[in-house]
Amino acid sequence: MDKGGIDDRWLAWFVDCALDEDTGGRDVTTEALFPEGKMAKAHILAKEDLVLAGLSVAERVFKALDRRAGFHGRVKDGDSLRKGTVIAEVEGDVRALLAAERVSLNLLQRLSGIATITKAFVDRVKDLPVKIVDTRKTTPLLRRLEKYAVRVGGGYSHRFGLYDGILIKENHIRACGGVGEAIRRARERGPFGMKVEVEVECLEELEEALRHRPDIVLLDNMDLETIRKAVEMVRGKALIEVSGGVTIERVREIAQTGVDLISIGSITHSARAVDISMEIIDEGRG
Amino acid sequence: MDKGGIDDRWLAWFVDCALDEDTGGRDVTTEALFPEGKMAKAHILAKEDLVLAGLSVAERVFKALDRRAGFHGRVKDGDSLRKGTVIAEVEGDVRALLAAERVSLNLLQRLSGIATITKAFVDRVKDLPVKIVDTRKTTPLLRRLEKYAVRVGGGYSHRFGLYDGILIKENHIRACGGVGEAIRRARERGPFGMKVEVEVECLEELEEALRHRPDIVLLDNMDLETIRKAVEMVRGKALIEVSGGVTIERVREIAQTGVDLISIGSITHSARAVDISMEIIDEGRG
Amino acid sequence: MDKGGIDDRWLAWFVDCALDEDTGGRDVTTEALFPEGKMAKAHILAKEDLVLAGLSVAERVFKALDRRAGFHGRVKDGDSLRKGTVIAEVEGDVRALLAAERVSLNLLQRLSGIATITKAFVDRVKDLPVKIVDTRKTTPLLRRLEKYAVRVGGGYSHRFGLYDGILIKENHIRACGGVGEAIRRARERGPFGMKVEVEVECLEELEEALRHRPDIVLLDNMDLETIRKAVEMVRGKALIEVSGGVTIERVREIAQTGVDLISIGSITHSARAVDISMEIIDEGRG
Amino acid sequence: MDKGGIDDRWLAWFVDCALDEDTGGRDVTTEALFPEGKMAKAHILAKEDLVLAGLSVAERVFKALDRRAGFHGRVKDGDSLRKGTVIAEVEGDVRALLAAERVSLNLLQRLSGIATITKAFVDRVKDLPVKIVDTRKTTPLLRRLEKYAVRVGGGYSHRFGLYDGILIKENHIRACGGVGEAIRRARERGPFGMKVEVEVECLEELEEALRHRPDIVLLDNMDLETIRKAVEMVRGKALIEVSGGVTIERVREIAQTGVDLISIGSITHSARAVDISMEIIDEGRG
Amino acid sequence: MDKGGIDDRWLAWFVDCALDEDTGGRDVTTEALFPEGKMAKAHILAKEDLVLAGLSVAERVFKALDRRAGFHGRVKDGDSLRKGTVIAEVEGDVRALLAAERVSLNLLQRLSGIATITKAFVDRVKDLPVKIVDTRKTTPLLRRLEKYAVRVGGGYSHRFGLYDGILIKENHIRACGGVGEAIRRARERGPFGMKVEVEVECLEELEEALRHRPDIVLLDNMDLETIRKAVEMVRGKALIEVSGGVTIERVREIAQTGVDLISIGSITHSARAVDISMEIIDEGRG
Amino acid sequence: MDKGGIDDRWLAWFVDCALDEDTGGRDVTTEALFPEGKMAKAHILAKEDLVLAGLSVAERVFKALDRRAGFHGRVKDGDSLRKGTVIAEVEGDVRALLAAERVSLNLLQRLSGIATITKAFVDRVKDLPVKIVDTRKTTPLLRRLEKYAVRVGGGYSHRFGLYDGILIKENHIRACGGVGEAIRRARERGPFGMKVEVEVECLEELEEALRHRPDIVLLDNMDLETIRKAVEMVRGKALIEVSGGVTIERVREIAQTGVDLISIGSITHSARAVDISMEIIDEGRG
Repeated sequence: MDKGGIDDRWLAWFVDCALDEDTGGRDVTTEALFPEGKMAKAHILAKEDLVLAGLSVAERVFKALDRRAGFHGRVKDGDSLRKGTVIAEVEGDVRALLAAERVSLNLLQRLSGIATITKAFVDRVKDLPVKIVDTRKTTPLLRRLEKYAVRVGGGYSHRFGLYDGILIKENHIRACGGVGEAIRRARERGPFGMKVEVEVECLEELEEALRHRPDIVLLDNMDLETIRKAVEMVRGKALIEVSGGVTIERVREIAQTGVDLISIGSITHSARAVDISMEIIDEGRG
Repeated sequence: MDKGGIDDRWLAWFVDCALDEDTGGRDVTTEALFPEGKMAKAHILAKEDLVLAGLSVAERVFKALDRRAGFHGRVKDGDSLRKGTVIAEVEGDVRALLAAERVSLNLLQRLSGIATITKAFVDRVKDLPVKIVDTRKTTPLLRRLEKYAVRVGGGYSHRFGLYDGILIKENHIRACGGVGEAIRRARERGPFGMKVEVEVECLEELEEALRHRPDIVLLDNMDLETIRKAVEMVRGKALIEVSGGVTIERVREIAQTGVDLISIGSITHSARAVDISMEIIDEGRG
Repeated sequence: MDKGGIDDRWLAWFVDCALDEDTGGRDVTTEALFPEGKMAKAHILAKEDLVLAGLSVAERVFKALDRRAGFHGRVKDGDSLRKGTVIAEVEGDVRALLAAERVSLNLLQRLSGIATITKAFVDRVKDLPVKIVDTRKTTPLLRRLEKYAVRVGGGYSHRFGLYDGILIKENHIRACGGVGEAIRRARERGPFGMKVEVEVECLEELEEALRHRPDIVLLDNMDLETIRKAVEMVRGKALIEVSGGVTIERVREIAQTGVDLISIGSITHSARAVDISMEIIDEGRG
Repeated sequence: MDKGGIDDRWLAWFVDCALDEDTGGRDVTTEALFPEGKMAKAHILAKEDLVLAGLSVAERVFKALDRRAGFHGRVKDGDSLRKGTVIAEVEGDVRALLAAERVSLNLLQRLSGIATITKAFVDRVKDLPVKIVDTRKTTPLLRRLEKYAVRVGGGYSHRFGLYDGILIKENHIRACGGVGEAIRRARERGPFGMKVEVEVECLEELEEALRHRPDIVLLDNMDLETIRKAVEMVRGKALIEVSGGVTIERVREIAQTGVDLISIGSITHSARAVDISMEIIDEGRG
Repeated sequence: MDKGGIDDRWLAWFVDCALDEDTGGRDVTTEALFPEGKMAKAHILAKEDLVLAGLSVAERVFKALDRRAGFHGRVKDGDSLRKGTVIAEVEGDVRALLAAERVSLNLLQRLSGIATITKAFVDRVKDLPVKIVDTRKTTPLLRRLEKYAVRVGGGYSHRFGLYDGILIKENHIRACGGVGEAIRRARERGPFGMKVEVEVECLEELEEALRHRPDIVLLDNMDLETIRKAVEMVRGKALIEVSGGVTIERVREIAQTGVDLISIGSITHSARAVDISMEIIDEGRG
Repeated sequence: MDKGGIDDRWLAWFVDCALDEDTGGRDVTTEALFPEGKMAKAHILAKEDLVLAGLSVAERVFKALDRRAGFHGRVKDGDSLRKGTVIAEVEGDVRALLAAERVSLNLLQRLSGIATITKAFVDRVKDLPVKIVDTRKTTPLLRRLEKYAVRVGGGYSHRFGLYDGILIKENHIRACGGVGEAIRRARERGPFGMKVEVEVECLEELEEALRHRPDIVLLDNMDLETIRKAVEMVRGKALIEVSGGVTIERVREIAQTGVDLISIGSITHSARAVDISMEIIDEGRG
């Protein structure tokens, strides 16, 4: 296991797949331009203000193409960087550096984008006893990395997938014929080591749900007033999570209602990539 | 090979990986709630206006979990949909439907997001002889799908990776010691069946580049005035691509300068996921 | 997903690996003895009394080598069979039947062995409100199948692995410096959707643990008297699991103390394979 | 290739799969309890008398999760250990130690169980010119390891699979229409570098088989008297293997009849796991 | 298992890898030239006299790219074809036909080349009691197919690899310190179901070898006279194989000395590809 | 990326597959003959005059089986060697040396065979401004290595596969309904960074093709006189490639017509393996 709970062997597989996708085994441009063994040095630079995430992933990309490449991080994951900051210095075979550039930047830009927007949400509520958490609305095959980026930004992880947490959603309830029946079955037949979380859409459903004693209730897409009433109804009997339509403008008001968890899909599914670039600073020997 | 040039065997692999990531082989909630073999029906719905992309990918996700699931598309990739439109009707084992929901929506939302923003760019310039093209700034492991979504939105594909096109960028030029030398090496040692494209940052560099007769020039991050001058210098001698800072507001002015290609990283790396949901509409027998 | 919650795609992979291991792509004996296309029929027979588990796994093994093989189960998983019972009739290419025989029997014998011994434990306590559960003491790479066999025998699944349940064991406590501190950290930093289970070795440790309010306590290797006292101390405040040295002779007394769960490693790690064989009953045409 | 003829690259694959199965990439308990980089030391202990097998496999499991872990074997495979013996001392990141514990113990316990029971059989006949050999009745995907454990216990390997030895069994004979015809085909069409072994169920069949000069005969499930007569009929003309119902009580009498090989399925398919545990002995720095 | 003993699942893997290598998931020419769904018909033609091998492999290549492609063999593996013969008619999506053409022809040409040259050797000795056998001098990753082609041409298979036959070669003898010692160790420690074959370079070595009773002797690179003497020395005591420098001109004389097996590396490692082509005969609808 | 543009990670995969094919995880001969850890030294020798290719591939094969093996190349890829030259000295565990021998020689012999025949062609035309290029007529799964061997022999690489170059062949033209239409579609819908190459069979087709301005024309199977006329028609307007029936005798005349590229399928599909062997020179300690 690796930094931040990302499994090392998985990461090696992921980086290999990503390089295969981009290079197909060859970079026709650098092979034409440079002899083997020519060395170079480059800077990785923040081109805007950002919260950094993914530095060790970027390092692996370079090292996958040149085992002896030097990668010297000047800052670390979680740091808030100003535009112009040198993130890392890389040194190695110029072919490897240029072939690895795009994949490593694509990852750094996306993960730092997620950390940056997460941090913005977290900062709005940092004096309140609430946690900002992620969802399963992540990019297929990148969930481990995107959930890591959320943690780097100060957020918390919800269940990783369908296998490590019970969450009864509206579609489950509909197919089950009622929220009470759904909770009952989950408690009876679900893994005994997991809590039962249930999503509700209105106060009536919440009331019925509470009669069956869920461990966690998820208030879906409710307005502020309704959330306040729900908190009142629940308090003491279950953890409360809020989800749906949580914007940077609304997050603080929601948090002030006293809910325990606020989950936000957009921090992963719609985070803007931040601008990071690589610049060759020294054309080396060889 | 499959619809839209996406290789069938790759897609099967990708969908398997995505489902493994999300389900880890089990959905503890649906297993607790429903017996095997219980059937259900659901609608996939556009929750905002969008251009659809990825319908056959979504279909595969459902069929990977229930081979006999019915998936009936009501519209098709490339269609501009109004909020509320039913995209598809799905029918199958309720466990499979609920386990496949998130992965298929995550893909549909992202790909449709890319098609939607691409279409917005394309529509601004559709009466002009210019092509909107993608870049390599795609999500690692999703490039085939994201480039497909760009084509669905009316855009064109740039090279797929480092192996199927020569593109000499600033870092190459710097490490080579000059744009002329870089073009010369690429022409001499690169694959004879590929054109030589070169990125330039200013008119002086363009002038030097043109002396070595590249097939395509890429004007990087230039203002409108400079682009106009560049077009004048080049015209007739090479294809012209523009890249860098192309926004929906600027794209038409740039196109009007007479360039051939406009490449835009943000249509893939920062496209917002559009809102699409699934709703169980009928709790079936079994 | 497949019968009994075994993921279909995983099972295909597993069966392929098992056949590769045994056949290496060739069965030199059957290839020498029979022409391609010669058909045969065979019975799979219980050679002792047993509880059956793994029938659909056995079916897959045959079909992996002969897609058109007929496999007709005469009984089903969970059935208690008498010695001599015909379990299934198989029909297909004689080469495939003989090449698949050993792998399919190896699996059937092991899984039925597990179901049989589990059923013996379950039967002893079936009138009591207690669950017999499995452990992580399974054969590497066969956990899904072995836990399935436990369920077939009437047992329940504990967490599947390290990722889907919190269980603080003695080694954790030792490395943490105390049971209280360990529970505190687990609650604070562990996934909020999981309950906190803690193993204790004596009543003093139980007492300290209870002060930190775990959701489940695991009484490890305690004698009957101590278990009774523990139940008294806990009752109402946490679920109680007992583990360690549970034999078929002791299981009922333990259950009668009022504990909720009894986990038994030997039902998976030391189950004896039951005797099942295949007999060619008809030498076919071709 | 590795110790004991276990292919190194296969073992790396196997250990990776086993860890993936148990950890799914994460150990939620240790991640909650310990910071990264905290070191610890542990002992692996024999909790009963046993013959050790699998030490280097256990070592690999720890090193797969912490490349710099120290693993210091105090004894070696094949040693007969008394209850209480320290098998190895392990040192490394506490998260890795605790995450690797179960998989490495599951393997050690199973393999040592096989070596222990094999040794018991071997010891009963060690002054006689007979070999105890294994069968193909092994756990799917663990055959290499289980056959290795048999060799550690003093036994010998029969063919590895269907591809590296000819063995005509009852089902083959039935489908072939006679033992003579089966031997004839095997000799004529089988690989010329392999001996022809044939299973017989009674003396009449043996007599017919001998007329076709097999290299090895396998006496299946015969009583002592019949074995004696068979040995008399065969001696000098073929190697003799005995199989079926060989118990620790009967093995010596069988060996004394003068057979060459005794194969025993139960040493692999029904070996009891011996008791081995890991104990944290020192909570380290960090 | 499939035609000719080629494992079906292996073949599916091999064909997938071969197509991935050639197409990388895309055929830029056919995608540009033809719409999806356009059908076509083509002939596969022998452009010189040849013995056909690999027809079902070629079929799989087409079907891997178009599951519904029709492939109608007009002849079959092992047939001696005249130049101009239509081997098969293929029908399907024109993109799939053209993308599959090269891979399927590359395989057909190589395998038929091997069958053709093998047949030439076999025909020279067909009235003599000798077998023409292959070696391990095959193309890495194509051994299954190349050994199959040898069998199609009338030859026999030697051991498949290092795992299914004992063959003591000169390097083994040198490292062992003598042929006698080598045979002794092989018999004692090698798998008891395998015969012991030993390579000798001169009559003195043969004499020493025979004293240790090998099952098979391999006469390496001997002239005709020496082979005759060797046959005299051996006859009755072991099978005799000849190898080294066997040409089409010499093969009959060698066979006439009375040896049992003649193995020839050049039939696999240096077979010339025969000329086979595909021609579109009908531009279809769609 | 590795020497000669062969991707390092691909090569590791390839070598693993090749060793698995040959060893199946075990070498029964060396395991019987030698204890683990016994060391030896060997020479790899040219047994005929040849141009060497594949030395680093051979090295990898040995190191895959014995990580600490010493491999000391005495010459390098591209060198023209005389019969008897020592190519490399290898040192390591005798089991690994003997198990790796065949796979490494099979590769060296084939790749050097390709380099040798390529060099013969290249030498005939080395004073002329023409390039000898390879084709897609390579052995499935070995294309990277075979194209590398062509470059070692002084040849050039044509497109790697269907994805990195446009080549309109006769079958395309037939299915398209004319050479002009085919070129038009390729230019319009093909990747804009690739040149358009078209194959023509006669001067009439060439004339029509030239009207649509292809970047490269491929003259297929034309006699010398026709090639001369074609060169006259084309010169200045496109690159000219000649293919079909190019023998070592004809290559110089063809080159003298003034064509730019001569592609030759036989240098890869029918290259004879050159003779290279390994000899144990020192039986080591251990």
